Amino acid sequence: MDMTIGDFLLRRLREFGIRHLFGVPGDYNLAFLEQVEYSNEIEFIGNCNELNAAYAADGYARTQGFGSVLTTYGVGDLSALNGIAGAYAERVPVILISGMPPLHAILDRALLHHTLVDGNYDNVMITVREFTVAQARITVENAAAEIDRVLLTCYRERRPVYLQLPSDLATLQIEVPERPLQLTETRSDPNQLKDVVEQIVQRLSHASTPTLLVDADVSRFGLTGLVQSLAETLNVPFATMAPAKAMLPESHPLFLGTYVGAGSAPSIREAIENSDCVISIGARFTDTSTGLFSQKFRAGSLIQLQPYAVSLNRVHYTAVSVRQVLAGVLQLATKRIQAWPIRELREQRSVTPFEPQPDAKLSQLRFWQRISHFIKPGDLIIAESGTSSAGLNSLSLPEDVTFISQPIWGAIGFTLPALLGSLVAQPQRRQMLFIGDGSIQMTVQELSSILRRDLKPIIFLINNDGYTIERLILGENSSYNDVNRWRYADLPYVLDTRNRSRRLIVHTEDQLEAAVEQAATANELVFIEVMMARMDAPESLKHFAKMFADFDFGPSPKATETLSMAV
Amino acid sequence: MDMTIGDFLLRRLREFGIRHLFGVPGDYNLAFLEQVEYSNEIEFIGNCNELNAAYAADGYARTQGFGSVLTTYGVGDLSALNGIAGAYAERVPVILISGMPPLHAILDRALLHHTLVDGNYDNVMITVREFTVAQARITVENAAAEIDRVLLTCYRERRPVYLQLPSDLATLQIEVPERPLQLTETRSDPNQLKDVVEQIVQRLSHASTPTLLVDADVSRFGLTGLVQSLAETLNVPFATMAPAKAMLPESHPLFLGTYVGAGSAPSIREAIENSDCVISIGARFTDTSTGLFSQKFRAGSLIQLQPYAVSLNRVHYTAVSVRQVLAGVLQLATKRIQAWPIRELREQRSVTPFEPQPDAKLSQLRFWQRISHFIKPGDLIIAESGTSSAGLNSLSLPEDVTFISQPIWGAIGFTLPALLGSLVAQPQRRQMLFIGDGSIQMTVQELSSILRRDLKPIIFLINNDGYTIERLILGENSSYNDVNRWRYADLPYVLDTRNRSRRLIVHTEDQLEAAVEQAATANELVFIEVMMARMDAPESLKHFAKMFADFDFGPSPKATETLSMAV
Repeated sequence: MDMTIGDFLLRRLREFGIRHLFGVPGDYNLAFLEQVEYSNEIEFIGNCNELNAAYAADGYARTQGFGSVLTTYGVGDLSALNGIAGAYAERVPVILISGMPPLHAILDRALLHHTLVDGNYDNVMITVREFTVAQARITVENAAAEIDRVLLTCYRERRPVYLQLPSDLATLQIEVPERPLQLTETRSDPNQLKDVVEQIVQRLSHASTPTLLVDADVSRFGLTGLVQSLAETLNVPFATMAPAKAMLPESHPLFLGTYVGAGSAPSIREAIENSDCVISIGARFTDTSTGLFSQKFRAGSLIQLQPYAVSLNRVHYTAVSVRQVLAGVLQLATKRIQAWPIRELREQRSVTPFEPQPDAKLSQLRFWQRISHFIKPGDLIIAESGTSSAGLNSLSLPEDVTFISQPIWGAIGFTLPALLGSLVAQPQRRQMLFIGDGSIQMTVQELSSILRRDLKPIIFLINNDGYTIERLILGENSSYNDVNRWRYADLPYVLDTRNRSRRLIVHTEDQLEAAVEQAATANELVFIEVMMARMDAPESLKHFAKMFADFDFGPSPKATETLSMAV
Repeated sequence: MDMTIGDFLLRRLREFGIRHLFGVPGDYNLAFLEQVEYSNEIEFIGNCNELNAAYAADGYARTQGFGSVLTTYGVGDLSALNGIAGAYAERVPVILISGMPPLHAILDRALLHHTLVDGNYDNVMITVREFTVAQARITVENAAAEIDRVLLTCYRERRPVYLQLPSDLATLQIEVPERPLQLTETRSDPNQLKDVVEQIVQRLSHASTPTLLVDADVSRFGLTGLVQSLAETLNVPFATMAPAKAMLPESHPLFLGTYVGAGSAPSIREAIENSDCVISIGARFTDTSTGLFSQKFRAGSLIQLQPYAVSLNRVHYTAVSVRQVLAGVLQLATKRIQAWPIRELREQRSVTPFEPQPDAKLSQLRFWQRISHFIKPGDLIIAESGTSSAGLNSLSLPEDVTFISQPIWGAIGFTLPALLGSLVAQPQRRQMLFIGDGSIQMTVQELSSILRRDLKPIIFLINNDGYTIERLILGENSSYNDVNRWRYADLPYVLDTRNRSRRLIVHTEDQLEAAVEQAATANELVFIEVMMARMDAPESLKHFAKMFADFDFGPSPKATETLSMAV
């Protein structure tokens, strides 16, 4: 079967469920973009810049399964890099395609713009390789094989990959496989698998207080159903780590809550730390998800399942698929183990009704209380790093809410373009963004792309006059933590010309009440600027920031007066 | 002498003439920022994001000599990378300082946010290394030596360097040298120098039509005075390459014009291509500066001087400093060679007075004609890639104009943050930016930082409804070359709260006339949105785009219908 290289690549993207390609046009990707333009199945979503495009592809992938972004060589790839690294850290499968200079120029080491004009065409590859799991520079000879190898690796590892497509190749015809790419996961070594399943069930059968500890990879690999079945079949309670927020139903009777080490609620902490068998699935014990490495487990209690590895009784199995392990455990345990009795897991969270206090200035505490009543089943919530994610992490979310944040990579500004991506993927769904003033300044232009496509999210901009999270760590009143003041609520008016938004500024509880009431029924983008005090923040964030400062700066003097001598 | 590592670094930056540090605060650079906060000599300029910060440092370095930018590890470094790569390509000395996680965490391979949480603390270094000429991860043991090594390399190569400063080290005291860093250039090997000077003077003495061909490095290494002396002493005419626009006085009687290969004006082309001795200084024969490699020289006529190398009669000297070579040639030639008679070099450029046609829609041709009368001696002009730089490159600029563009790296969006940098460096000077709509969308938030500091540039936004330069190459009417429409003239109102700008929209010649008259006397930021037709562009750009399309996409069919099959 013959096909042009560009069309073959588009066909493969479709096989990943991709219907939208984010990116920015540039001198070396135009021929491929013409192919996209005339494709009926993949639509190009032009972004304002490449970093935003990568973030959008990430948000799309978290919602749709896989995402893709197209850049032009050099200027585009390097601009997108931080977004690709974030997708790597958070395990989000994003396919980065770079339109490269024509192959003849590469072979000639031609001194082209968008390069360092020293004939070096390897530096960008060396760079992107550090933040992707597979890469290829496409040639006519290797195109069919390399595209498939790289994309299959993306599928199996759920992490970013990188394809360099020289500009003169996109329209050339090659022979390609007729069949769709077989999107299969890496299979287990049968002996390791058998052994692991046997041992886990063995351990479970001797446990009196087993628990499951679930992290974000459970969702990335589509294992939430399997994990929930295992929990329900045996009545094993489960906790999530912060990056897995809302990936399992938070109203589930077996749900313990979020485990963040010493920062956890007492009942959760006790349940996990006293458990005699903690089966962790995809857990990554990072600083932010463990209250700065304060996690504790009973000696020998922790079994660690990773996507393709298991650590158990100090033995490391490196050739087992977590899906097969979980399925095997479920099957064998059902036969061998009787379900544990249902325990009373935690304090009943009493849902206190929210009564707005007229004219009361909004506090973080009261704001998040109000928001907890506004979020409804099925919403998609995006939380920027800082007070937004801290506030939302403290709420118990209803059924079928998707929660997106970037807790590991933590690049501020990620969420606004990510919202574009999730909206493009699921435009019918109610989607809400919570973002701060310092963060929105990073990537603000992508609001334009949301308006351009008539998308209708609800955006809460928390304006607390600067980088509050940094002020909590160091420099509460230092000028470097200030940002310029903007007329944020006018942004949707200026970044589009068609008046497709509702814009509100709220200072008080009753104003917030009126605003969310409008947002509940509006049929347009709603932008709510929420004024908050500078140093107000969720308690969990204040606590973390204080601990982190000690970790970060060591025992050296922290009083500002002593930090600096006259230069 | 004892000093904290942070203060020592600040002291060294001051020795480079740096008074401003651009950047974004982050979890790992706060202790160092506190030192900046209490320093009396270096001011922190907070940017909206790190790419913009790197661009601003680049614009500052082009104006002030050297620039510096501070990021936080991972998210910050990678976001800044495209700006650092641009500085490398264009040979602009920018010092990138990254606040890294604390050294104890690095040694522990701790799973920290802003990393891939796999214990890898080398990937960012591997990445940045590709686009900088020296790098170091600072430790207490190496701090004094490594800071000096890296900074001296920056000085000598006039290219970016990279310092990783772990967060727990900034405030630790170390022993440091009392003396300023000796900022000396690499010296020549005396035998090679003598030989080169002798041979160049020999070649000159036999030449009948010698010329100088000057590229941007002449300015980066502070050689413009020396080059002009050499030209004037011997009456040797000189041409510039496009990246060296306005680096030598364009009204000089010996100035030929800009040489762009076959794209040059006939008189310039003839002067260079028929010259029997072309001494090129810093010349890089890139695609855009040669009309796609159309430069031609008489056989054996070209002598190539690079910053630390000379190619001459097919011999490559790799240990000669261009400054010493030029000084030696000037000295020896003055003794041995009589000045050539002054030739009539080129058609007199007649300065046609500009008479605005009332109600006439603005064209690119007429717009640049009008602007040529508006630019005055001493202005600093920044030209975005695309129609802006093509238009301005076609003008003859008055004395002492500084012209900034990014012709080699060519990242659109560079110029608005670069304007912030040049304004911070020289706030008293009249500065003008010419930028397109697609470009300003890339980095628009940095307009806020300009307003925040009460800076008062004149910004011409050329609104031609999308990526015109790409439309000229491929996809004139394709949707991927569209951008969303904004109310651009309201941007200064929204990205600040203090009404410190004048905002104008012009469609016609008389409106432009009124606008520039206002701009000439305004004491505030002036933002002029200039409406132009989509496919209108300077002729030189149209011509280049057409040639480039053939180069870029090869002989494959370009008609859009044939490019794509149904996917």
